[in-house]
Amino acid sequence: MIEIEKFIRDIENFPRQGVLYKDITPLLANAEAAAFCLSELVKLTEAQHIDKVVGIESRGFFFATLLANKLNAGFVPIRKSGKLPYTTLKQPYALEYGMDSIEIHEDAIQKGDKVLLHDDVLATGGTARAACKLIEKLGGEIVQCNFLLELAYLKGAQKLDRYEIRSLITY
Amino acid sequence: MIEIEKFIRDIENFPRQGVLYKDITPLLANAEAAAFCLSELVKLTEAQHIDKVVGIESRGFFFATLLANKLNAGFVPIRKSGKLPYTTLKQPYALEYGMDSIEIHEDAIQKGDKVLLHDDVLATGGTARAACKLIEKLGGEIVQCNFLLELAYLKGAQKLDRYEIRSLITY
Repeated sequence: MIEIEKFIRDIENFPRQGVLYKDITPLLANAEAAAFCLSELVKLTEAQHIDKVVGIESRGFFFATLLANKLNAGFVPIRKSGKLPYTTLKQPYALEYGMDSIEIHEDAIQKGDKVLLHDDVLATGGTARAACKLIEKLGGEIVQCNFLLELAYLKGAQKLDRYEIRSLITY
Repeated sequence: MIEIEKFIRDIENFPRQGVLYKDITPLLANAEAAAFCLSELVKLTEAQHIDKVVGIESRGFFFATLLANKLNAGFVPIRKSGKLPYTTLKQPYALEYGMDSIEIHEDAIQKGDKVLLHDDVLATGGTARAACKLIEKLGGEIVQCNFLLELAYLKGAQKLDRYEIRSLITY
């Protein structure tokens, strides 16, 4: 049993004034803590069968690749627009100010695939919801959305209320 | 035995006209092929002791996290400037036209750490050399630089001739 919170560092005013950023790099840098965290994330999936683990660029990639490996599933990256080289589907989402968009390769998910969506942090839920839409447009079935950290005061889970949401740590 | 090349897709003119991009997402999407590729990358390390696996943003993260987990080492991301939240060291490097820079957290490597540097593709070697400089500035000892793919005609290995370079596939 390792206290994961001890390996998460608070950074004030990053990426901008007034934001408290949760830095998971100390967790990643510690082999034992990262392995423990991975095993806890695997437990969250409750042994459901997963075909694809989808990770959101770029901090979602860290544990999404590990989860895919452990669950014997394929890994699929969702990236910011313009980064994926093959034919993509694009989904816009709202930022605090303005809009952004993310993309998935159109052949990354097969119809009926059981999909686990992973990101490091659930904040406002805008990106995760856009990711869910992309997965569903390709015919994927979202079995669970899991996160290392959930910033519950930002109410991201409300945007994802159609899905099963799990988080290792809730602030 | 899996033929890894079969899972790498050529994309013409990406990210710009005249470039042949090697797309590894089909490899990542196939659990068996990705697991085989990981075990081959582990073999390249020849059971040398590794304290930290450093991955370069962002496609280097995919197998670097997996390598760290398999080798029971910590994982350290090197990111484009402005992305890492804590105090960083920065290293500029030359692009085809102009300059860019990458960063590492100043506490990510301890003096004397045995480091494996991983990226998906070795092209001109500029980013990898900049990454090596960052690791050495922090006192890390680079045990090996390994890559999924090496585009040998770009002569990146020449820029890294002080280091042990290994690649799974050479084009």
